[in-house]
Amino acid sequence: MKSTVGVIGGGQLARMMIPPAVSLGVIIKVLEEAPGMSAELAATGVGDYHDLDTVLSFAKTVDVITFDHEHVPQHVLHALVEAGVPVHPGPDALLYAQDKLLMRHKITELGLPSPDWAAISNADELGAFLDAHGGRAVVKTARGGYDGKGVRVVDDKNAADDWFTVLAEDGRGGSLIVEELVDFVRELAQQVARRPSGEIAAYPVVETVQKGGVCAEVIAPAPTATDAATGLDGSASTVAEVARDIAVRVAEGVGVTGMLAVELFETRDGRVLVNELAMRPHNSGHWSIDGAVTSQFEQHLRAVLDLPLGSTRPRDAWSVMINVLGGPVGQFMQDRYPAVAGEFPAAKLHSYAKESRPGRKVGHVTVSGARLDDVLADARAAAAFFED
Amino acid sequence: MKSTVGVIGGGQLARMMIPPAVSLGVIIKVLEEAPGMSAELAATGVGDYHDLDTVLSFAKTVDVITFDHEHVPQHVLHALVEAGVPVHPGPDALLYAQDKLLMRHKITELGLPSPDWAAISNADELGAFLDAHGGRAVVKTARGGYDGKGVRVVDDKNAADDWFTVLAEDGRGGSLIVEELVDFVRELAQQVARRPSGEIAAYPVVETVQKGGVCAEVIAPAPTATDAATGLDGSASTVAEVARDIAVRVAEGVGVTGMLAVELFETRDGRVLVNELAMRPHNSGHWSIDGAVTSQFEQHLRAVLDLPLGSTRPRDAWSVMINVLGGPVGQFMQDRYPAVAGEFPAAKLHSYAKESRPGRKVGHVTVSGARLDDVLADARAAAAFFED
Repeated sequence: MKSTVGVIGGGQLARMMIPPAVSLGVIIKVLEEAPGMSAELAATGVGDYHDLDTVLSFAKTVDVITFDHEHVPQHVLHALVEAGVPVHPGPDALLYAQDKLLMRHKITELGLPSPDWAAISNADELGAFLDAHGGRAVVKTARGGYDGKGVRVVDDKNAADDWFTVLAEDGRGGSLIVEELVDFVRELAQQVARRPSGEIAAYPVVETVQKGGVCAEVIAPAPTATDAATGLDGSASTVAEVARDIAVRVAEGVGVTGMLAVELFETRDGRVLVNELAMRPHNSGHWSIDGAVTSQFEQHLRAVLDLPLGSTRPRDAWSVMINVLGGPVGQFMQDRYPAVAGEFPAAKLHSYAKESRPGRKVGHVTVSGARLDDVLADARAAAAFFED
Repeated sequence: MKSTVGVIGGGQLARMMIPPAVSLGVIIKVLEEAPGMSAELAATGVGDYHDLDTVLSFAKTVDVITFDHEHVPQHVLHALVEAGVPVHPGPDALLYAQDKLLMRHKITELGLPSPDWAAISNADELGAFLDAHGGRAVVKTARGGYDGKGVRVVDDKNAADDWFTVLAEDGRGGSLIVEELVDFVRELAQQVARRPSGEIAAYPVVETVQKGGVCAEVIAPAPTATDAATGLDGSASTVAEVARDIAVRVAEGVGVTGMLAVELFETRDGRVLVNELAMRPHNSGHWSIDGAVTSQFEQHLRAVLDLPLGSTRPRDAWSVMINVLGGPVGQFMQDRYPAVAGEFPAAKLHSYAKESRPGRKVGHVTVSGARLDDVLADARAAAAFFED
């Protein structure tokens, strides 16, 4: 089998691929952006992923290329494919994680449910959309947004003028996306893995709680409190079934290889709508490291190597993952281990080996168990130790 | 906190410390015996652990020293301690894992149950022991044995003459150990972790099945079929309680820091006897990587860093670990993944990245679940794929 996986990008997602690579006996090599990044242990190169020569010479040392992030430019990706390098996910799939406008067109073409949306090029078009949607909407840049960046809630047709100006100066005729402000009861995320040969494995849908546009808390599986939804074929279904069906159709429709996360809104009136796509391991799946038979990181390695996928069975009834954001500046998560580990012997502590600064994701905590109330309380309390 | 752990020895036990080190954000550095060993990814040095200068300069790059094996000479260990390096386990504890004769004296001094045993220096002393024990016994060299080496079942007083000759030529007055051939119903292993500050955490006792003196199969926890034993204080106890009490008393009596494994015999007449000690992660605990909240490798890191210990709770009712011994010469375990992973999506596959040769431990497979019969059958069938 091909057994050296090359990861472009040295962040925490690359870092968290290291443990399953070691367990499976898969060699992992990381091209990091700068020395000393989170995935340093597996770094075999340092360089700019925008530079084709850098990426091509890294690719010569591995059997398959995958990613820590979605920012590698299309021309670099296509050059890799032309050079005969297996790239997973491939450029034609990854495009829909890179460009939110193309994603909305594709989701609509696949017959999957989106919030009302439009491509807009000027303030008047924004104004018309606002008039038709109660005066408020979400405006997004097609490219470059993550963790709440490039996303703006607006109630004034001139509130995105700065972005329109940038697009006009760019001169490539790009548009912004405007979307209805969805009246959701909660946010969900559905992950599936897909191999190049077509096999798909779905994880249980999870509930995600965002704070300031950043994922703060994940409950796996999503509790079934509001568990009635309209299926893709109009049938009565559970929210979990609809979420899984949507993600499977996206994975197949777009030809994703590796992990896919579909961020979803569950609306007050029982609809499940596609919010965003991510084609890599995703923050909403970190619970699976400790909470599922096969973690999303092992699954991603299996998928990009075209190996049979592993069981996605949860190990306990509930797992809750809390991100550790910030903490005292200049400290590391592990500085607090003596206190936290003593109080919470069953909490799984994950540090990304990053120095703390306010709002920075430096690690996460997962607790699993039989009762959701207990699991939630322990996970929150353990994570809180790191942030004050 | 001190957060760089140095591991002497580059074998699979060092390798399996890498995933929890990455998760916890602990830096791990390995001094391997030769380039390209199993723990290569974390190797920062190559050298001979018998050489004091090599070990001392490696120790300067880490906060605490621990081990992949028990072969580092006492004079090297003591020099480390004198140089102010935290060494876990320390030389005074490790001595009892290095020398089986000293171990037997210590176990007896601690009031813990051993098979009948004696130190012997010549064939006549062996003959006298054989006469008193039905004509058969086990002879062991005090040092250098592992995986069935340095152990011999004898029924003739001259059957250890070659070893006596070596001891006589050595001229240091050493002895062999002779032990009664225990009529055991099964072999068990009890693991505990102990921190320098004294906290102890015990894993459930497991059943181990040896083939040719090598651990082949581990069932966690040990089934309770013959579950009546005489406690250390003469009370009626369960086998699990007696096993745990023995290991805790050894850990405290000897001052072990890090993981301790006590290999035990359960006899037909309800006794639990100490067979061997190991002061490091142990083959009988590999199940815990996938089967317990805190794996023995994470626990070892926590213990040697003097961090609070993690929960030893099993994740499922049963876990079965099967060693993969050998397989087609020159292949790697991962060459068989396409077949095995498809048949057994819930099997956790662990490769030590070693080329196969007959009888060599190249990896292991663990399956966890609710029914022991199913778990055993799946684990055995999955492991068998690798060996033909």
